[in-house]
Amino acid sequence: MKLKVLKFGGTSVGSKEAIIRSASIISKWSKKYKVVAVLSAMSGETDRLINLTKLFSKNPNPYDYDNAISSGENVSCSLMSIYLNSIKIKSKSLMSWQIPIFTSDEHMKSRILKVDKNKIFKEFNNSDVLLIPGFQGINSKNEITTLGRGGSDTSAVAVAASLDAECIIYTDVEGVFTTDPNLVKNAKKISQISYEEMLELASQGAKVLQTRSVELAMRKKTKLSVRSSIKPNSSGTVVTEENSKLENNTVSGIAYSKDEAKITLSRVLDKPGVSSKIFSPLAKGNINVDMILQNVSQDGKYANLSFTLPRNDLEKALKILKKEKSKIGYKRINSSNNISKISVIGVGMRSHAGVAQTLFETLGKNKINIQVITTSEIKISILIDEKFTDLAVQKLHKAYKLHI
Amino acid sequence: MKLKVLKFGGTSVGSKEAIIRSASIISKWSKKYKVVAVLSAMSGETDRLINLTKLFSKNPNPYDYDNAISSGENVSCSLMSIYLNSIKIKSKSLMSWQIPIFTSDEHMKSRILKVDKNKIFKEFNNSDVLLIPGFQGINSKNEITTLGRGGSDTSAVAVAASLDAECIIYTDVEGVFTTDPNLVKNAKKISQISYEEMLELASQGAKVLQTRSVELAMRKKTKLSVRSSIKPNSSGTVVTEENSKLENNTVSGIAYSKDEAKITLSRVLDKPGVSSKIFSPLAKGNINVDMILQNVSQDGKYANLSFTLPRNDLEKALKILKKEKSKIGYKRINSSNNISKISVIGVGMRSHAGVAQTLFETLGKNKINIQVITTSEIKISILIDEKFTDLAVQKLHKAYKLHI
Repeated sequence: MKLKVLKFGGTSVGSKEAIIRSASIISKWSKKYKVVAVLSAMSGETDRLINLTKLFSKNPNPYDYDNAISSGENVSCSLMSIYLNSIKIKSKSLMSWQIPIFTSDEHMKSRILKVDKNKIFKEFNNSDVLLIPGFQGINSKNEITTLGRGGSDTSAVAVAASLDAECIIYTDVEGVFTTDPNLVKNAKKISQISYEEMLELASQGAKVLQTRSVELAMRKKTKLSVRSSIKPNSSGTVVTEENSKLENNTVSGIAYSKDEAKITLSRVLDKPGVSSKIFSPLAKGNINVDMILQNVSQDGKYANLSFTLPRNDLEKALKILKKEKSKIGYKRINSSNNISKISVIGVGMRSHAGVAQTLFETLGKNKINIQVITTSEIKISILIDEKFTDLAVQKLHKAYKLHI
Repeated sequence: MKLKVLKFGGTSVGSKEAIIRSASIISKWSKKYKVVAVLSAMSGETDRLINLTKLFSKNPNPYDYDNAISSGENVSCSLMSIYLNSIKIKSKSLMSWQIPIFTSDEHMKSRILKVDKNKIFKEFNNSDVLLIPGFQGINSKNEITTLGRGGSDTSAVAVAASLDAECIIYTDVEGVFTTDPNLVKNAKKISQISYEEMLELASQGAKVLQTRSVELAMRKKTKLSVRSSIKPNSSGTVVTEENSKLENNTVSGIAYSKDEAKITLSRVLDKPGVSSKIFSPLAKGNINVDMILQNVSQDGKYANLSFTLPRNDLEKALKILKKEKSKIGYKRINSSNNISKISVIGVGMRSHAGVAQTLFETLGKNKINIQVITTSEIKISILIDEKFTDLAVQKLHKAYKLHI
């Protein structure tokens, strides 16, 4: 049995026209393959449902919240199947509990544990296309769970991995670009990219694929690509293992995020266990800390410690840290929320020197001050004043010759 | 364990204010009882979903259609539970497959076969209120099914019957009235009514309760009552077994329906099997025939046969019968769609003469011609010209002294 797993996001099923357009893509694939299409809710629908819950509680209980917000995907799957059947394609929508897609127990940010492929294979005896809701599953208590924003990408990859099939993510852009095309006019579509680079790009603010979906594809070696549902004949971007076929650019792309904030704790006692005293209460408060930077003072007794976090968690984090002040033992706490993060990403960095040098020179020439630098094998991230974001991305895109 | 089953219709959960108002009724009952509340979708939501399906097919495949239109009840249950939890009432929404509520296999007009009470009792170990979606269940193939319009009443009675609890239907009127209060200003609320009378009233066009829910309550001897969700302290109408406590009115109520049409076949050969030739193709076409009337001609060879049906099935029925003309062997087919049906209902008819006489006299005095009459033990139904409907109901209401 030849299989394909396709995923259509909210805008690709957001109207009658969009559903019919996406149906024609499914229809085309179904001529040669059995197709699973994983769908998001119609664009705006999940927000509508979330807003409904907020009418009744600022802090809805997670079990009922997941019940409420998981319905949008079932509706889009049913509508797609109704249309496909009307044009004589044998298809069927399946709810996540009918398959089932098993997840971890927690609500609102659950993780997929297993997709039962037997049910899918059984249904393919009578159907050529199966429509499966993204973003959700059931846990060990037989309760509906949701995966968090963008979870439908992960659903699609998980289904593809379980079936050992290729996963094609259809979206409203033509693929993964060297940087945000809204910011840099001559940003170029990347035809092939490695899982690792895609992972860094995704987690550094490129919104084409959800980070967890790339992680999963990398772990399961699932063939993954991104294509446009509006121009389905355009070749898109293939995410694959690093190999000789990859264009050997030193830098593959530039990502940025304006949703950053920074906290600095001054004169923290530099002794074992102190960072745990800082970061465990934040983790308990569900705050994801990103970059961490620590400098020890000259006398070796104290350290200054900075870290970044999502901007809308800043108030909460400050509150937690002020409460813990005596336990942690710092002198001063400072924060800023007018910063942004820029990341330069490329597997070629491993073998090419001078990537950091180009970054420093380019920003220096443009009088942009770098507040924090962190590096990994395939990424350099910097924090700068938010107002220089666009300029920095444009100048770096040119400096690394990504438009060529 | 003391239990109550409450049912709230679309308008009783149709807005933030309505949900909070209905929540206060649930909250009050939950002080003394474990409560199951069966909810409809927010008013307008099921229509919105039906209209969405119609965008993609005039005749959607039933399996996916049921998947699409069943989501509204889950959302209202989740929202209600979010609110109840926020005011510290331990509650939980359950989807029909989690209980499960088992139905027959067919879609769009399924019947409830069994409600698994074990799951409900188990959930009451941790919760005081359970929110259960009306209008739906799952069939033996683990597929979502829906019960047809107004099915939530039946869901509530089925849950109550399985738990051996009283069922209170909260709606936007104060109870069951002697006739439509919009038509007759001094229509009176009926405080007690027998199952049989309620059944006739419901099936004859009084829209307070779905017919099937009354049938089920009668069969299971479930205590059933109707109350206002806006004036919850008003006593409403209790539907109960016929007994001495019932007010012994000869006539309990007058129902009417303007959605009627009539077909007459002239000079049908009067021989065995001919009515099956007429009515089986109609049944196959899913057309519910109501009143049937047959007069044999003087020579005994031919008959004239009339029957009534829902007005929006008229075109379809005519098409079917014209196609079957040679098989049936009739001479002429006539139809009219400007007729209405009026039914006078009351268990007292069994023992009281003169009910029909009052009817004939009243209509005669008002120059309203009766086209068709049928009678049962507790009901007299007539067909009249639609334009006399309001006048007839008003005059009959007065003639039977129902306002007193």
